[in-house]
Amino acid sequence: MDASVILVEPKYAGNTGSVARVMKNFGFNKLILGNPSFSLDDDECRKYAMHAQDILDNAIILSSFEDAMKKVDYMVGTTSIESRNDKHHLRKAMLAEDFAEEIYRLDGRVGIAFGREDYGLLNEEIERCDLLVKIPTSDVYPSMNLSHAVAVLLYEIFSSKYEPEEKILASRMEKEKMYEFFDKMLDVIGYPEYKRENTRMLFRRVMGRSMLSKWEYHTLMGVFKKAIRAAEKKYPYSTEKK
Amino acid sequence: MDASVILVEPKYAGNTGSVARVMKNFGFNKLILGNPSFSLDDDECRKYAMHAQDILDNAIILSSFEDAMKKVDYMVGTTSIESRNDKHHLRKAMLAEDFAEEIYRLDGRVGIAFGREDYGLLNEEIERCDLLVKIPTSDVYPSMNLSHAVAVLLYEIFSSKYEPEEKILASRMEKEKMYEFFDKMLDVIGYPEYKRENTRMLFRRVMGRSMLSKWEYHTLMGVFKKAIRAAEKKYPYSTEKK
Repeated sequence: MDASVILVEPKYAGNTGSVARVMKNFGFNKLILGNPSFSLDDDECRKYAMHAQDILDNAIILSSFEDAMKKVDYMVGTTSIESRNDKHHLRKAMLAEDFAEEIYRLDGRVGIAFGREDYGLLNEEIERCDLLVKIPTSDVYPSMNLSHAVAVLLYEIFSSKYEPEEKILASRMEKEKMYEFFDKMLDVIGYPEYKRENTRMLFRRVMGRSMLSKWEYHTLMGVFKKAIRAAEKKYPYSTEKK
Repeated sequence: MDASVILVEPKYAGNTGSVARVMKNFGFNKLILGNPSFSLDDDECRKYAMHAQDILDNAIILSSFEDAMKKVDYMVGTTSIESRNDKHHLRKAMLAEDFAEEIYRLDGRVGIAFGREDYGLLNEEIERCDLLVKIPTSDVYPSMNLSHAVAVLLYEIFSSKYEPEEKILASRMEKEKMYEFFDKMLDVIGYPEYKRENTRMLFRRVMGRSMLSKWEYHTLMGVFKKAIRAAEKKYPYSTEKK
């Protein structure tokens, strides 16, 4: 995926700095500014970017939306206002969530355009977009801060491919060892014989469902070992009965 | 769901104003500030809140995390840093995406705590939380702006229950009417008899899959009517053949 964030006529330098920061948070690095009201060296802009100065350093400034169109193969517009009227195709938008899957299927350079802080994208800009994406918001107050809108959309794109690190599960052998210890414990605590089979099975099921990690296994084994030892001391003859 | 956003020792008034705004964007209204460095009447705070002044007006200021604990039945901590070490349970976190489903199952008052702009939540605060949630971010720069973190988490919660407005579909009767017109069109254009049955079926299948809206129906019907009329003029005898 080759995606650029395009800010169309941004007014506030701080917002653009914030956008640079959140781009870096979610692994994006191409920023295009269309006719901004400030310079990229603006103090506020630099301050809000925090550790994403490189994104500002490499940002491209263009003078019009048409120039931005030439930089991408696929232009995606964003909006918070969706036409409630079935007849208006212009502002019919795809949900951010669905777009986050779709973008990985797009070939070529994708531009994601965010409009002005006050007016968003103009109709003539939206007309030029290949696709319109919206972030669902409350009807009471749908208008989001610019950098928040960027944050949410980039988060969706990032997280749709995010794989949580797998925990290292206890092996089959380790689990069997634990079941053995559990049996032994039932034994030394004098657990009624006729209940054992059911309880053994229950323990096996519970542990099976819990997706025990290696470390959790070792901790629990420590508990069983200590319990067995303690029980053996208290009932010194119980193990000999077997 | 009864959820409060809790900001723990926020330093920058503008951030808190931004948080109020995005809370309103996603339909949240309970804001608790733990020992903030500014007053709720701060100009920056008010400016960034935009049309969410009511949320600041109704915000509660508390002096400690313990006081906040008393206000909720379920305390949820947030973090961007997840322990990569299986042994540290303290910072084991649930993904924002999964929490967004889970929160609707929680009974009672839920507090979602966000830490300081620089240090996040302290270990002793995290220990007191019932659950820890993380927003997946790039390893290169995981530290998010406070209001961005709030924006992303509240967005996840809001959007997990968001139902896109259903379009009003064409009724069974309207669709049958359209199939009739399609048949008539095949007739007047002199479509080969032996192909008709198959083409009729194909049209029915295609339209069935497309989930035609009422408005799309009316537009297409307009097209068919015009096509039929035009064909009747061109082939004045074709309809009479039937």
